[in-house]
Amino acid sequence: MNYNFAQRCGNFEPSAVRDILKVISQGNVISFAGGLPDDNLFPLDAVQNAYERVFASGKHTLQYGLTQGYGPLREKIAERMTRKNVHMSADQILLTTGSQQAIDLFSRIMLDPGDTVLVENPTYLAALQVFQSYQSQGIGVDSDVDGMLPDDLEEKLKTYKPKFIYVVPTFSNPAGKVWSLERRKEVLRLAKQYNVIILEDDPYGEIQFNENETYAPIASLDNGETVLYTSTFSKTVVPALRTGWVMGPKAIIQMMNQTKEAADLHSSSLDQQALYQLMTHFDLDAHIENLRTVYKERMNVMLELLEKTNLPGLKYVAPRGGMFFWVELHEQINTTALFSKAVENGVAYVPGAPFYVGEPKYNAFRLNYTYSVPEKINEGMSKLVHVLEEAYKSINQ
Amino acid sequence: MNYNFAQRCGNFEPSAVRDILKVISQGNVISFAGGLPDDNLFPLDAVQNAYERVFASGKHTLQYGLTQGYGPLREKIAERMTRKNVHMSADQILLTTGSQQAIDLFSRIMLDPGDTVLVENPTYLAALQVFQSYQSQGIGVDSDVDGMLPDDLEEKLKTYKPKFIYVVPTFSNPAGKVWSLERRKEVLRLAKQYNVIILEDDPYGEIQFNENETYAPIASLDNGETVLYTSTFSKTVVPALRTGWVMGPKAIIQMMNQTKEAADLHSSSLDQQALYQLMTHFDLDAHIENLRTVYKERMNVMLELLEKTNLPGLKYVAPRGGMFFWVELHEQINTTALFSKAVENGVAYVPGAPFYVGEPKYNAFRLNYTYSVPEKINEGMSKLVHVLEEAYKSINQ
Repeated sequence: MNYNFAQRCGNFEPSAVRDILKVISQGNVISFAGGLPDDNLFPLDAVQNAYERVFASGKHTLQYGLTQGYGPLREKIAERMTRKNVHMSADQILLTTGSQQAIDLFSRIMLDPGDTVLVENPTYLAALQVFQSYQSQGIGVDSDVDGMLPDDLEEKLKTYKPKFIYVVPTFSNPAGKVWSLERRKEVLRLAKQYNVIILEDDPYGEIQFNENETYAPIASLDNGETVLYTSTFSKTVVPALRTGWVMGPKAIIQMMNQTKEAADLHSSSLDQQALYQLMTHFDLDAHIENLRTVYKERMNVMLELLEKTNLPGLKYVAPRGGMFFWVELHEQINTTALFSKAVENGVAYVPGAPFYVGEPKYNAFRLNYTYSVPEKINEGMSKLVHVLEEAYKSINQ
Repeated sequence: MNYNFAQRCGNFEPSAVRDILKVISQGNVISFAGGLPDDNLFPLDAVQNAYERVFASGKHTLQYGLTQGYGPLREKIAERMTRKNVHMSADQILLTTGSQQAIDLFSRIMLDPGDTVLVENPTYLAALQVFQSYQSQGIGVDSDVDGMLPDDLEEKLKTYKPKFIYVVPTFSNPAGKVWSLERRKEVLRLAKQYNVIILEDDPYGEIQFNENETYAPIASLDNGETVLYTSTFSKTVVPALRTGWVMGPKAIIQMMNQTKEAADLHSSSLDQQALYQLMTHFDLDAHIENLRTVYKERMNVMLELLEKTNLPGLKYVAPRGGMFFWVELHEQINTTALFSKAVENGVAYVPGAPFYVGEPKYNAFRLNYTYSVPEKINEGMSKLVHVLEEAYKSINQ
């Protein structure tokens, strides 16, 4: 039988990263490819304890829940977000199946075929996939280490009349970048001027290495009209519960809520209740503090090894948080072509090309440092440097 | 700020049922409106035990999982479905956030704006909402107590060239109907002849009252090419875990898997692992047997009370399973108009009109009998009959 799929399926590109992860999980490869937190740091006892508390409340906890999500957890999130100077009520929060679903639902209520979304370049691969699945297109805005360049943003706002601007301003994926406060303000100003919403994706904001610095979410600079903010418990608690949230203007949250009702009625309410119990009875701050310490140490191990290499044209910025190094190599090195060689040598990265919109660059890759212990980072980096040194031999310098 | 939503939002109608449920949960009303199982029958100990087993396996259980869902649970489902003569591999199964997500993902990969889906009339409200959200339309096929009428189906296959046929052939929602075997075969034959997929939605199939009868899923009559089958653990275990599945042709499952990756990466894998443990260590069959007994008793209480009323033009069929009575009243009774009167009198139903595609009928409602104990059914039905008797006084007979 021939299956006559919808036109949007033609625009669908499967995730290169997940295909790679499948290959890697089969072999004995040290992987810097995924975006995984380290299992060994998961607060298993606290999670177990949280579920026990939910079960102790009785059978009604296992009934259908609200599409918008478990009220007390939304209250907790609203309260916690005030620390970041984001002030919204529980009513302005929708609980989602990870922040990925927030990106999807927002795209679904915003994007008609042919629409555009302005993005950093490179940007989060799986967001680009979502836009494509609605027959829409990401348009790259030029940026430097401080974030999007206002001039280019303004030009593209005029040219493309985008439906929204998608940004990861704090410890971005893949570039591991932090936007300056000025740039955040400037982008917000332009978004307001051109009447375009900003989708601020902040999955990594809590994984911050320099405790004396403050990175104000763009949502905290807004009057509640222009910025939709999404984050997740996947990186701070555990991924398996798939609980994220999105908060912003009420009209948008309501429309997303209606859409979620059709999409899946609601996400697991047992998981949401457990997260509420965990936030109430567990010292999440101390836990996050520990994650910061451990992940910072691992980042430093990787940084030192990168600093020791003598490969020409190597560019990277030491991450101030998050999970990734973004490394640019000599422009004649093609990391997509080199990938199978790396895996053969027992190490994996994510080639940079799929993170770009428009013309991809082939001379970059993304390295994750959160999943592997320092010894493995050492071992894997030594394999990787070996592969790179071999590759550099064959280029014209 | 003005939010410029996508065109598909214009086609979106919020669920009347859920709006009603919100009203009811605030007052002291006996509700036959929802589609809820009874909390008191939830196997809380077994669920708790299942989570404990997952936690005992270690921290890796809390890591990200596969988009397709936890493999061992898919194996268990594949094995269990062989009892219904549906023979498919775990590879042909996708785990979803309730079967609602299966309907949504399938619609997403199939429906372009302007497309049509053939449905029973009345049919499951939230499926109609999904089709509308993709700017597509349900087209009602005439049916009798045995299911869709083949002649009308064939005519509409020719006229509308639909993208698929959506059916709930076993204990349908809202009509509580069971299709005959002949009709199942006939609809499958026509689907094959016209190269159109059947989406068989079977959330209630396990809640069967007459143990000697067999209701073959349409998927069991197929060679694996034409029928996509979806069901859920919400009715047999508990709803809070939001775990459903969809199984069928590999090309379709793969496309849905890709789409789910963009939509939410994966559903709660902790819940999926717990369900696997529950299916392994708990006597689910004995539990379902108990549900059948209790729900059948409640259905019979409602049936007797309906039989006792002397209202002219009352039509209903005693359900052979599932959760609902569908009651048609004298054609001058408008159940939508009467609804607020019913709630004032302390009882709620779901008005029938939103379940229809095309021209709605206003003289029917849906009653749920699974959520209330027999005493409450007695009390609520006496209130409801009172409201109806008053309404009948004002019509011209």
